[in-house]
Amino acid sequence: MTDLLRREPHVISAGLELLAGAAEGQAARVTRVDWKPPMPGTESDLVRVLADRRRAAANALAIRRMLAARAQLVDLLPARDALGLRPGEFLHAGPPTSWERAAGPLRGALMGAAVFEGLAADPQAAAAVAERGGFALDPCHAHHAVGPMAGVISPSMWLFVLEDPASGRRAYCSLNEGLGKVLRYGAYSPEVIDRLRWMASVLGPLLQAAVRAGGPVDVTAILAQMVQMGDEAHNRNRTGTLMLLRDVLPSLVATSFPASDVSRTVSFIGGNDHFFLNLAMPACKLALDAARDVRGSTMVVAMARNGTDFGIQVAGTGDQWFTAPALTPRGLFLGDYGPADANPDIGDSAITETAGLGGFAMAAAPAIVRLVGGSVADALAATRRMYEITLAEHPLFQVPALDFRGTPAGIDVTLVARTGILPQINTGMAGKVAGTGQVGAGLVTPPAEVFPAALRALAEAAAAPAEPA
Amino acid sequence: MTDLLRREPHVISAGLELLAGAAEGQAARVTRVDWKPPMPGTESDLVRVLADRRRAAANALAIRRMLAARAQLVDLLPARDALGLRPGEFLHAGPPTSWERAAGPLRGALMGAAVFEGLAADPQAAAAVAERGGFALDPCHAHHAVGPMAGVISPSMWLFVLEDPASGRRAYCSLNEGLGKVLRYGAYSPEVIDRLRWMASVLGPLLQAAVRAGGPVDVTAILAQMVQMGDEAHNRNRTGTLMLLRDVLPSLVATSFPASDVSRTVSFIGGNDHFFLNLAMPACKLALDAARDVRGSTMVVAMARNGTDFGIQVAGTGDQWFTAPALTPRGLFLGDYGPADANPDIGDSAITETAGLGGFAMAAAPAIVRLVGGSVADALAATRRMYEITLAEHPLFQVPALDFRGTPAGIDVTLVARTGILPQINTGMAGKVAGTGQVGAGLVTPPAEVFPAALRALAEAAAAPAEPA
Repeated sequence: MTDLLRREPHVISAGLELLAGAAEGQAARVTRVDWKPPMPGTESDLVRVLADRRRAAANALAIRRMLAARAQLVDLLPARDALGLRPGEFLHAGPPTSWERAAGPLRGALMGAAVFEGLAADPQAAAAVAERGGFALDPCHAHHAVGPMAGVISPSMWLFVLEDPASGRRAYCSLNEGLGKVLRYGAYSPEVIDRLRWMASVLGPLLQAAVRAGGPVDVTAILAQMVQMGDEAHNRNRTGTLMLLRDVLPSLVATSFPASDVSRTVSFIGGNDHFFLNLAMPACKLALDAARDVRGSTMVVAMARNGTDFGIQVAGTGDQWFTAPALTPRGLFLGDYGPADANPDIGDSAITETAGLGGFAMAAAPAIVRLVGGSVADALAATRRMYEITLAEHPLFQVPALDFRGTPAGIDVTLVARTGILPQINTGMAGKVAGTGQVGAGLVTPPAEVFPAALRALAEAAAAPAEPA
Repeated sequence: MTDLLRREPHVISAGLELLAGAAEGQAARVTRVDWKPPMPGTESDLVRVLADRRRAAANALAIRRMLAARAQLVDLLPARDALGLRPGEFLHAGPPTSWERAAGPLRGALMGAAVFEGLAADPQAAAAVAERGGFALDPCHAHHAVGPMAGVISPSMWLFVLEDPASGRRAYCSLNEGLGKVLRYGAYSPEVIDRLRWMASVLGPLLQAAVRAGGPVDVTAILAQMVQMGDEAHNRNRTGTLMLLRDVLPSLVATSFPASDVSRTVSFIGGNDHFFLNLAMPACKLALDAARDVRGSTMVVAMARNGTDFGIQVAGTGDQWFTAPALTPRGLFLGDYGPADANPDIGDSAITETAGLGGFAMAAAPAIVRLVGGSVADALAATRRMYEITLAEHPLFQVPALDFRGTPAGIDVTLVARTGILPQINTGMAGKVAGTGQVGAGLVTPPAEVFPAALRALAEAAAAPAEPA
């Protein structure tokens, strides 16, 4: 002990920078240990959930099911046939909501969809019907479907039908309209409605004929390749789109459709770098649906936003949503738009992050910083940080810049609560006024509160700790 | 001086590690300065060339012309029409050679091309004609053309016609056949000849019709984008190929050709990740031809190999070739092939490295290490090393992983001689026995001797030093 006092002090500091700095100010050697307390109020729930004797095996099962899922594009169908949607029924992104609570872009998309369906003469008339409670709303996620941004699906819209060949499980997503003034960003001008009509009368049926003639398209294989080609499958889907086009082309050009329809279709797909997003999303949905309903598992199986609320679902807590007000992304803006124009976070597209893509795979897509802001170093750091809160490294999604390390996959509620690190999401930004369209793109996280809420439910459902052997 | 001896020694070591290590072994502090003598025998030529009063302005002009060039695909034509080639005339990759000196893969390609042209009944008969001096050989480079690997162009082969819109300058390249048993790797089996016939009767004319109907394809724009999508435009052309397909598709599907031809064409292009190489190469050729014939410039305007010799041409020395025996690449092999099967370095494709792509842009294409060997760190280091021997950073070819720094472009003979750093080339490997085809892919450099040889010619042509002001 006397020896200790005689030597030069070497301070090891865990936590408070104030103490480490003060010691360093007195010329002491300081080694900082990276430590933070868990998220406030989660301590006792963490103890119960971490002690749940089912947890390790349950998480291993959930992640194994997620990583084993494969997705093939097997068909395209109108939503009325694929999901049994009837006139006046609309699906939307995120957790459940109502017309009263709906954000501007979701209202705008519902108004446009109602006009497209012939339920109203114009968007304002559609809003009046909605006010009177004339439309039935339900989340896409409740129907094995996902939709980007507002995520509105109505009966006449055509959907991609994806299937996991091993399980026969299916997932669905609308067709991507392109950028700018589009329904999913809440725009409803005549050009938006006209485009939706062309998509339902030509694009959908033509792709249906091509897929039926050419056979299933391996969406998982495209995802694996695009991560090696600068895409992260949420806001960069450039090579994915081109690979899809390549794969359907031989049968597309051999259909009996007029050459002008084929020509417009290949121009439309080739001119829309985001077209593949609507295949990446249901592929991720298929993988995460495979991991649902595993008792004791703390793995997140959905993150989704309706423009008002951000919600998560967890493998161990069934279909229960844990929600809190959505945050507003920070990023880069189109034209004269600025932060004041942006609606809070919206869309089911965070299913990509939930599956280890998107913000979790930004190290694979450094050029994305030109779209969402930040530096290449930030993109690499974002992916590295996500390893702290995930259960696995995805064996198929390998990041060249990280020496082919798999992307971080399978968000663990306990790791989020323990570290305070929130999932990194990159996203488009919709104008908050209905009818506006896209205003920018940026970065966002879930509101922190959803994780303690989920942890509380997991704690309430926790089994007793394992008996000591 | 006495003070110096009293203090602890701090050795600054430039050059020999032996001295630095010995001093360090005696507990002296050593700072190593990264210094090497120039390439042996180049000292006096370096002095003369570096003192050439025209040099700085000449190199500025050469690099400015190279970086300003743009390439558009404006047409496709048979070589007989584009280059005036007549029966019995063949172009080949690399510096001038003869049947007697030709390597196995070049002989194999010439034999196959002669059969394709109907000049011989079979490859052996073609070889007999060649032995009797029946064929006229000339380098592609002497005809504003380039060809990958053996690079054989015969009159009936169709060529891409690229044009720089500002200057009207044109460059030409054959169409890519795919991988494996293909003519450019020296294979000449019936399947190779059949494929060439289909390319001449369907692929070329169909693409011609599409390009003429759809208008020029901006090849430079595709190059700029692919560098952000994991391609380096020599041995990775995956996204480039898909973007080309995207750009020609709308007019391709609207031609009057039978749907079965269109379908086979899109399958052929979509199934060949290297198809765009034959557009990247002439785009680079256009840029480097713009930099030719600038007196006093020490910039390399061509690196090319015929399978026996490696040659370079320099802006300040006209059409003179500086040659030495080509080295054999090191890398990864297909199937049961090994190093003993590989022919020395062959092809005009090193025009990509000469223009700041290929091996110089490997940091943009980390996944290429799966093809050519090495680690991702090696790929990053290769690009960084090339900045030591180049005149500029390419404003259009930006590497995301290097924070969008431009690729190193414009090899300077004096910098190579001064540092001893040799240009990094990545390349396919042909089997050395005629008829074999591809055996692998790997990394190679020019033989060092070509740079002192070019420097000698530059020294002989050097102007007197500028008078002191």
